[in-house]
Amino acid sequence: MRYLRTWTIAVGAMLVALPALAQPTTTDTGPSAPRQVILIIGDGMDDQQITIARNYLTGARGHLVLDTMPVRSAAQILTVEDNTSAVPVYVADSANTATSMATGAVTSRGRIATTAGSDKPIPTIVEAARAAGLRTGIVSTASVTDATPASFASHINLRLCENPSLMAEVTYRDIYLGSCKQYLKSAGGPGSIAEQLATAGLDVLLGGGSKHFAVQAEGSNKTVAELAADHGYQLLSSPEDLAAANTDQPILGLFSASTMPVRLQGENERSAEAPSPSLLNHVHRYLGEVELPAPMVCEPNPAAATVPSLKQMTEAALAHLSRDNAHGFFLMVESASIDKQAHERKPCGSIGELQQLDEALQAALAFADEHANTLVLVTADHAQAAQLIPNVSLFAAYPIPTYTPGMLARIRTPEGGYMAVNYATTNFQMEEHTGANVPLYANGEGRGRVKAYVQQPDIYAIMADYLGLDKNATD
Amino acid sequence: MRYLRTWTIAVGAMLVALPALAQPTTTDTGPSAPRQVILIIGDGMDDQQITIARNYLTGARGHLVLDTMPVRSAAQILTVEDNTSAVPVYVADSANTATSMATGAVTSRGRIATTAGSDKPIPTIVEAARAAGLRTGIVSTASVTDATPASFASHINLRLCENPSLMAEVTYRDIYLGSCKQYLKSAGGPGSIAEQLATAGLDVLLGGGSKHFAVQAEGSNKTVAELAADHGYQLLSSPEDLAAANTDQPILGLFSASTMPVRLQGENERSAEAPSPSLLNHVHRYLGEVELPAPMVCEPNPAAATVPSLKQMTEAALAHLSRDNAHGFFLMVESASIDKQAHERKPCGSIGELQQLDEALQAALAFADEHANTLVLVTADHAQAAQLIPNVSLFAAYPIPTYTPGMLARIRTPEGGYMAVNYATTNFQMEEHTGANVPLYANGEGRGRVKAYVQQPDIYAIMADYLGLDKNATD
Repeated sequence: MRYLRTWTIAVGAMLVALPALAQPTTTDTGPSAPRQVILIIGDGMDDQQITIARNYLTGARGHLVLDTMPVRSAAQILTVEDNTSAVPVYVADSANTATSMATGAVTSRGRIATTAGSDKPIPTIVEAARAAGLRTGIVSTASVTDATPASFASHINLRLCENPSLMAEVTYRDIYLGSCKQYLKSAGGPGSIAEQLATAGLDVLLGGGSKHFAVQAEGSNKTVAELAADHGYQLLSSPEDLAAANTDQPILGLFSASTMPVRLQGENERSAEAPSPSLLNHVHRYLGEVELPAPMVCEPNPAAATVPSLKQMTEAALAHLSRDNAHGFFLMVESASIDKQAHERKPCGSIGELQQLDEALQAALAFADEHANTLVLVTADHAQAAQLIPNVSLFAAYPIPTYTPGMLARIRTPEGGYMAVNYATTNFQMEEHTGANVPLYANGEGRGRVKAYVQQPDIYAIMADYLGLDKNATD
Repeated sequence: MRYLRTWTIAVGAMLVALPALAQPTTTDTGPSAPRQVILIIGDGMDDQQITIARNYLTGARGHLVLDTMPVRSAAQILTVEDNTSAVPVYVADSANTATSMATGAVTSRGRIATTAGSDKPIPTIVEAARAAGLRTGIVSTASVTDATPASFASHINLRLCENPSLMAEVTYRDIYLGSCKQYLKSAGGPGSIAEQLATAGLDVLLGGGSKHFAVQAEGSNKTVAELAADHGYQLLSSPEDLAAANTDQPILGLFSASTMPVRLQGENERSAEAPSPSLLNHVHRYLGEVELPAPMVCEPNPAAATVPSLKQMTEAALAHLSRDNAHGFFLMVESASIDKQAHERKPCGSIGELQQLDEALQAALAFADEHANTLVLVTADHAQAAQLIPNVSLFAAYPIPTYTPGMLARIRTPEGGYMAVNYATTNFQMEEHTGANVPLYANGEGRGRVKAYVQQPDIYAIMADYLGLDKNATD
């Protein structure tokens, strides 16, 4: 099979070629000082999400930790159709955007570090860093096999091929979504995302998704988790495990079956709801009246207490990656459910997960304060559906009922205001992403390295350059 | 009347107090080098609008002039209810946001440089600059009496009180919207916005809105335009007038009756349109099919040829403001119809007006290249309704018809892609604003002066500080 030969040759060539190019750049703290990159991704964390979270968490005049970052930029998302024509697609998914950041390449939606149309693997920064002797880690509040984390350390044509049982005909809610059978080990491929991650040599892999590791590995009588243990991992499944983990040994922590439970939820688990116009308003939109969803506050989700916070996972990852490490590391941290909760029209969920990201950032900045040569980047992979709209219309003086045609949540903020958040990209049960360029922040190490406007694949080049890796490895 | 005494005292005190404080800061090009600020406002120019325009005008991989600015920040919008409680409102209008930038104060929607609830005038940067001996100019593609330009050089409680005939009971499309009769000159007030602008002492005032100056001034047998001529203005009404204007004398150029015609429009003047589901789909959303609006391109609006471009107005303003000027200047330039066209669900219109802003920025940067001590800032006043959504749904594999519940335009881009832009904040005939923090850009002079995150009123302080004005004048 043409694909498989290409895969073996490309990744093999990279692993051979990189160590010679991987000497860290000399720095002002001496040539031997290790360098590290912490890339924090807020999935779907666009400026609407950030503002909604700021207004709720700190008040409109308050500051998130994000707001204190000294460098701010915007990143343009690049996506193409799934062929080799490079025809642009203007709204991305988390697979192709994570691939851009992990590899510097532009690909099509749904792809995990593989090329659009030609289906070739694209070497990732985790692979390059590891080949250069750096430690590597991935932390996510999603399943670690989900698109964002997967794109940093695995290669497959279809993001839903997360475990060995999903490697043939992929269906979701009974709809056929495609096949990745050419990636089966029996076909000479690298196997499912979980199998690839279990053997990718990561020092730290923390998040949700234990169900994907409980499946029997292909051609084995062991589960994927057991396979990982054979490769030297400590297996962790609770906050207590995480706190007690031995920092001498790689860790695979899977704290929930799939996506980790989120921190906040709407009162009585409410989502955004449809405004309810009166019968007369159905006759003509100038007539009758409309009942908007009642205001609510956000409240804690009790299930979140059963799993570690993103900050706790980030701190554990940093401890593992930095202990007695003269060579530096690359760590990707994702707050995944800003996006996932927005798909489900749950603004409180998104607010809580943005708070989790902000806390993880605080941990990363504290680490950077104590460890020279630490570049901290924060960004979103793509924009999302939520919009902060007026609670009292700009046109309230007009005596006709006006309301969003989508779904609406009205949230009472702790400072006494009312935020109206609408979701109106689609009538489907899941909202769509949107296409705006996304925020990109850096700590002081980003000065001069992160321009005020970049394209998303440039993030790979910025990180690879900082770590002294061969940023042309993917060309 | 309490209000009127306050107005006279506050503005009078400022005008007396400021000259002593207005010595420009010593700079590295000598203490006598003039300083100037060019503030460019894209009304409603949020990251969705910028990305939509970039994709159309340059291709997804291209660069706007905006994208080359070395400093990028985000500005949080602050708005309050119209009383003295300071309870936050999370979505702004152009009146209160322009007031924030022009004065450093937070006020309520609809107000032009007056305080929320207590209705007191707030001194503006134009007034402070003029009192300090700097020249001042305002350029807009809206009526110069519209909310954004008005807030820099007039004071009134209601943005629609644009001319003497609108000073009592204000109605819009037959709906009563309030009264500003306490601002009548006969009540001891400063008069309508047009009357205030005609006597504000601006060196340059260019844009639309001639109909507001064709009205008889209160207590006079002259029109407002004639009043302006009595105050020394050259009156200009065509691109030819503008090109031929004498740079020794203040200019008032009014090139259209109200808002200036926009540059681009949809094919056959199309706006966004409602998707058209089949009868069966009305029975159940999983059934039937949907017809989406046909794709279109953007095409020139012939009417735009009758007026000067925003770039031409900006260049004329800069020529007038800089000629033989040892004291510097303040210039505000607004591309107004990014917002106005989005209210009307016309993405091509917004794209063309963002292009106009980008060209005006190019002129400002060229000026700054040749004139030391020129701070160029670009920002939006508030976010807007347009969203770039997928042309092919993320969930296209599901065999059910999905579509936005709002209005949709599908635009074929010159590079061969398809952009889907939806408008779904309201069922009203005009879209609502949204509440996200907005972009803020600066040229090199902004380094160290424009932090990566600011609140919108900070923009006033940045500009006043740069010009050596008393930034505490409004406290």
